[in-house]
Amino acid sequence: MFAPLQNDSFLRACLRQATDHTPVWLMRQAGRYLPEYRATRAKAGSFMGLATNPDYATEVTLQPLARYPLDAAILFSDILTVPDAMGLGLSFALGEGPRFAHPVRDEAAVQRLAVPDMDELRYVFDAVASIRRALNGRVPLIGFSGSPWTLACYMVEGQGSDDYRLVKTMLYARPDLMHRMLQVNADAVAAYLNAQIQAGAQAVMLFDSWGGVLADGAFQQFSLAYTQQVLRRLETVHAGQRIPRIVFTKGGSPWLQEMADLDCEVLGLDWTVDLGRARAEVGDRKALQGNLDPNVLFAPPAAIEAEVARLLQRFGTPHQGAGQGPTHVFNLGHGISQHTPPEHVRALVEAVHTHSRRLRG
Amino acid sequence: MFAPLQNDSFLRACLRQATDHTPVWLMRQAGRYLPEYRATRAKAGSFMGLATNPDYATEVTLQPLARYPLDAAILFSDILTVPDAMGLGLSFALGEGPRFAHPVRDEAAVQRLAVPDMDELRYVFDAVASIRRALNGRVPLIGFSGSPWTLACYMVEGQGSDDYRLVKTMLYARPDLMHRMLQVNADAVAAYLNAQIQAGAQAVMLFDSWGGVLADGAFQQFSLAYTQQVLRRLETVHAGQRIPRIVFTKGGSPWLQEMADLDCEVLGLDWTVDLGRARAEVGDRKALQGNLDPNVLFAPPAAIEAEVARLLQRFGTPHQGAGQGPTHVFNLGHGISQHTPPEHVRALVEAVHTHSRRLRG
Repeated sequence: MFAPLQNDSFLRACLRQATDHTPVWLMRQAGRYLPEYRATRAKAGSFMGLATNPDYATEVTLQPLARYPLDAAILFSDILTVPDAMGLGLSFALGEGPRFAHPVRDEAAVQRLAVPDMDELRYVFDAVASIRRALNGRVPLIGFSGSPWTLACYMVEGQGSDDYRLVKTMLYARPDLMHRMLQVNADAVAAYLNAQIQAGAQAVMLFDSWGGVLADGAFQQFSLAYTQQVLRRLETVHAGQRIPRIVFTKGGSPWLQEMADLDCEVLGLDWTVDLGRARAEVGDRKALQGNLDPNVLFAPPAAIEAEVARLLQRFGTPHQGAGQGPTHVFNLGHGISQHTPPEHVRALVEAVHTHSRRLRG
Repeated sequence: MFAPLQNDSFLRACLRQATDHTPVWLMRQAGRYLPEYRATRAKAGSFMGLATNPDYATEVTLQPLARYPLDAAILFSDILTVPDAMGLGLSFALGEGPRFAHPVRDEAAVQRLAVPDMDELRYVFDAVASIRRALNGRVPLIGFSGSPWTLACYMVEGQGSDDYRLVKTMLYARPDLMHRMLQVNADAVAAYLNAQIQAGAQAVMLFDSWGGVLADGAFQQFSLAYTQQVLRRLETVHAGQRIPRIVFTKGGSPWLQEMADLDCEVLGLDWTVDLGRARAEVGDRKALQGNLDPNVLFAPPAAIEAEVARLLQRFGTPHQGAGQGPTHVFNLGHGISQHTPPEHVRALVEAVHTHSRRLRG
């Protein structure tokens, strides 16, 4: 059993219920811009050493909360743990992105793919439980996974890509193989997120980081359809509490209308989207999360505050009173940069709280 | 004086006039996927050796036309010739992208910027005239430039970037400097494109390749406003002929409505946009150009043909008969990949011609 929740503003906003301020958390809030994170990572020896050790994962997850009055914590982990558990051999070279030792590039490799034994991911669920205990009810804990399509991108490319040539070649030349891979991924991600919920995650987020690189038509068929499959299989109530589901597609603005029909509670938006227009398009179907350009954090605090006020204004006054209505969870439109000055994050969080209270009159 | 035009389908479609087929050309159609291009580049010694020599530029511009029945030619050049002429020192390391020896990173560097003497860009105008003569009226010649914002990205970053941190830091921390740089760029680009028109370009295209990395609000202020300034200063009729203006913003789908009000004739679309939806949103304001994912060209010819047919269908039957109405110029949604099999390009061009004639009944 976990301690009762003291600050439920994030969960309430996800469920389109009124809050006295707009809750805020930041994608990648436990990360390299914090000197204490870099110290823990140095102790752990490597990124995977950090992510696979529940004590270290707990330590770094709580670091930004010790500094800033954030309204949610997010599990410290990586979106690629699932394909790693499939045997693809994930590693992080220093100063580079993730890399798989065994990318999936031909029919035989696709045929070999299977949903991993969730015991291979025990370290993640242990981290969730450990963080949840350490939070002691202060704010809710968000679990997460990469979307089936985003996992497939890395599984085929073996690393990040400028043009996604290999994965798109498979998609257009062998759609049958791509569908098989995505089905395995969807089955694995659903099991993975449900296990996080069982372990104590109070909301879950699907990162479709590379959905936006797909062409119209391909996006619906190869990304959205499998995201929807995952969402439909998630436990939506656990221990008597609703578990909000968040979907974030970077570059997903062309498909906002279609995403508004997903089986989830919250849509994450990147910074290209006007919050007012998104609110009008999405209507009463979803809460919205986002969407400050992380590069705004390189400007002086006064400029950060002005941009925060502008975004809150674009969304407009959130729902107040009983029942459900339009709500906003403040976030960046992408992960925070490692070069961000930590004191600028304080200016951001305080501006969100102050201005959003003012907006409610 | 140049020879009369034999195939005016591209210009007619740009001006929203009826054609018997949907014209097609490909961004970066003269490029590394062609062995004859690689041979000429080897002779020239470097990319800039190729681009600055009007004979070589003419040779490579005509190479794809010798292979495929394309409906337009585009000047072989680079979007960064203008900042190079400003003295920033453009070079292309083999296998890497462009790089500036003297990036613009502080107030002093911004203050030093000035519109370059157009004589520094004489090699471009000579290439335009030479290509126009060599085309001998076969198809029209498109001139082009990077947009003021896209030039600024490279000028500040000094090279390509994943996060545009340096240029966005200047934008958010010192908007005054960014506006000054963009004003110089807009003045330079307008003069540059008008000189291309004087030299013989029959249409011009602005590549806002990095407009889509901007946040909503910043895009309108720092990209769109300066694109509009350039457009308003272009010569729209030359030697008695209308000169269509094309604007292509990669990742610009969130702002399609606003771009539909630009002072231009054609909007280029990347592959995330549904052509049917774009046609409905843009209405009778612009012709549309695009938008096949270049990665489709890695699929077998039958799959390429099916995707072409699907895109043509999504646009729907173009305007037929007299006057003006909705028209479509077929293109990729981005430059063609150097890894593209040349025979697949033939399949694409033939599919566009065949299916678009069929669509007109």
